[in-house]
Amino acid sequence: MKVESWPTAHVVEGRPQELPDAVVIEEPLEIWIGGAPFTVAMRTPGEDLELAAGLLYAEGIVDEPADLVALEAAGDTENRVLARLRPGLALDPRRAGRSLASSSACGVCGKTEIDAIFARGFPLLEARRPTVSAALLESLPERMRAAQPVFAKTGGLHAAALFAADGELALLREDVGRHNAVDKLVGACFLAGRLPLRDWLLVLSGRAGFEIIQKAARAGVPIVAAVGSPSSLSLRTAERVGMTLVGFLRRGRFNIYTSGDRIAL
Amino acid sequence: MKVESWPTAHVVEGRPQELPDAVVIEEPLEIWIGGAPFTVAMRTPGEDLELAAGLLYAEGIVDEPADLVALEAAGDTENRVLARLRPGLALDPRRAGRSLASSSACGVCGKTEIDAIFARGFPLLEARRPTVSAALLESLPERMRAAQPVFAKTGGLHAAALFAADGELALLREDVGRHNAVDKLVGACFLAGRLPLRDWLLVLSGRAGFEIIQKAARAGVPIVAAVGSPSSLSLRTAERVGMTLVGFLRRGRFNIYTSGDRIAL
Repeated sequence: MKVESWPTAHVVEGRPQELPDAVVIEEPLEIWIGGAPFTVAMRTPGEDLELAAGLLYAEGIVDEPADLVALEAAGDTENRVLARLRPGLALDPRRAGRSLASSSACGVCGKTEIDAIFARGFPLLEARRPTVSAALLESLPERMRAAQPVFAKTGGLHAAALFAADGELALLREDVGRHNAVDKLVGACFLAGRLPLRDWLLVLSGRAGFEIIQKAARAGVPIVAAVGSPSSLSLRTAERVGMTLVGFLRRGRFNIYTSGDRIAL
Repeated sequence: MKVESWPTAHVVEGRPQELPDAVVIEEPLEIWIGGAPFTVAMRTPGEDLELAAGLLYAEGIVDEPADLVALEAAGDTENRVLARLRPGLALDPRRAGRSLASSSACGVCGKTEIDAIFARGFPLLEARRPTVSAALLESLPERMRAAQPVFAKTGGLHAAALFAADGELALLREDVGRHNAVDKLVGACFLAGRLPLRDWLLVLSGRAGFEIIQKAARAGVPIVAAVGSPSSLSLRTAERVGMTLVGFLRRGRFNIYTSGDRIAL
């Protein structure tokens, strides 16, 4: 269940009608590492282990499935996931219990944002791998929405979808948070040993800000296409790693901001 | 400057045209307290002191302007703000350098999300103060957009606007992040000694998730009206503090989720 019913006054032309509204569920998920709380994500329940795995991968705490010797829901609450790292894989003590934003950008470690991605390691991208047509690209938002049953109900969920270069939908995740949707999707691939995502396209229902592009770069995604807008820092990040970044994607038009060589016009 | 120009291929009906695109600027802002880094916000530069003040107020670290004995930009970078707290106002050491999400929801402190707002202190809201008409409410998104020059350029900025009960726009802040726009707006009011915002309406260009409603509750805002959707936790929070929460606000229709007594139909 990703939605709940809420008694709501729907006011149309000044007249209220009491009807239940389907509202997207948002709850905190605590992610613990080795018996200590690491961070909290405000998320839509569901695929919590994927979310945790994706987030730990994005942060550079784990690099491959074997790094996670345990990943399970806590027994006493639905809002806590317990991760245990491979012995010898130390969690930088400066990062334990730290915010993810802090850990990726904090002045203490002296790294710039973009440098931090490189420090974590990201798969090198190859020129023109894959290459897709403009027509295929333009068809993807509709294909994504067709597979998004909850958004239709609530209007409140973001989606991240993984497509093959022939336009086939491989995986879709929805969440109240844009970042969570990407973490869940990448986490599912991580747990299945499917990273890096060198031959795939990532389609986003919303904007493509820096943190999203950082997660995509870390997962080795060569083409990211967003229905919404990019930011200055997401463009500089995409440019530096050689990722194709498309924004304002819709039928009949889109913008190519970086590495246009993967799109056949 | 909130936007920068980026060389972009605008593809229309399969044909690319190279034109500069105006892209919203996103950069990290480090917020330091008493000589140590506290957190980082990915934000659109501008009104950085307001952002820092609003964020520290939202987190319950400061309650009134006198609690901040200094708040200034760092001399060596545009992306760091230095805050100094009133002597005797101790920062909980568990919170120093911690994520905001963690500090508000972490299992360590054993608080639930909604309880955490009460722990920080929030102004009590009065029934029917203020009361506004449906017609006035419906006019606000247009008034907000009319005052949003940057969004028109980039499509990438969120806005938060404060309106008087007669519909007059008092203050508007834009940012690549929805939360930042609210922090900047509340921070400006905090620094001016104008909190709590008992007679005002807060209008949001996007969704009204939990963290946004938490910030509004802490600032004593009685009516929050969002163009986007609420979440389950934001509704429970609004209900508990007695806030009027409106979603999907547009001309001719909107939804009232909580405390409808402040809206005259």
